[in-house]
Amino acid sequence: MIADMSRFARTPQPPYYTVIFTSQRTEGDHGYADMGEQMMALASQQEGYLGAESVRDATGLGITVSYWASQEAIAKWKANAAHVRAQQLGKRSWYTHFEVRVGKVERAYAGPQLESGAL
Amino acid sequence: MIADMSRFARTPQPPYYTVIFTSQRTEGDHGYADMGEQMMALASQQEGYLGAESVRDATGLGITVSYWASQEAIAKWKANAAHVRAQQLGKRSWYTHFEVRVGKVERAYAGPQLESGAL
Repeated sequence: MIADMSRFARTPQPPYYTVIFTSQRTEGDHGYADMGEQMMALASQQEGYLGAESVRDATGLGITVSYWASQEAIAKWKANAAHVRAQQLGKRSWYTHFEVRVGKVERAYAGPQLESGAL
Repeated sequence: MIADMSRFARTPQPPYYTVIFTSQRTEGDHGYADMGEQMMALASQQEGYLGAESVRDATGLGITVSYWASQEAIAKWKANAAHVRAQQLGKRSWYTHFEVRVGKVERAYAGPQLESGAL
């Protein structure tokens, strides 16, 4: 299986900031899929957005890690009006539980010795 | 679907440290499942280990986020002899690509308003 490099974020040299969002979905869609796509598209247009990686398994547990140039960029995205509405729907309908952790990436490396250009 | 709280890490108040490991599996097992279990068990015995969250989807893309009390604890785990062997196998056999990002969690919050004790 060749790696789908589009699912890896192409982040710059650290330091940069990250939001780690671990969540358990409720059963049923409840408008989640559409809104999820809209939010990923909207996030990618925000100033300071560097990329994101997202995985959800068949049990509904998911991890989405987004990368940002600054804490200010994260704060602005959290306060974005459309995103605030999505966060409210998330708490009410989409997630039985989630954890959000915000931090600073200090170093990074990749492997195996395959450059993204080679794939 | 009730959240399986055992898949969320019960981390202390920040600050603490994190390793974000995003990876694309090769096809076939190649001893990965056994070794993965062994490594998670071994990691959990290391000094400074605070927990981990891990998800892999049907395409083989996975994100494992582990949490640690200090940078020193992360460095010791990276240098652990059994883990070094697993890292070598990972590069050779298990992953077509991976990204490792190491950072410091500065703040954290959870939702919805369900305490783990209520689940």
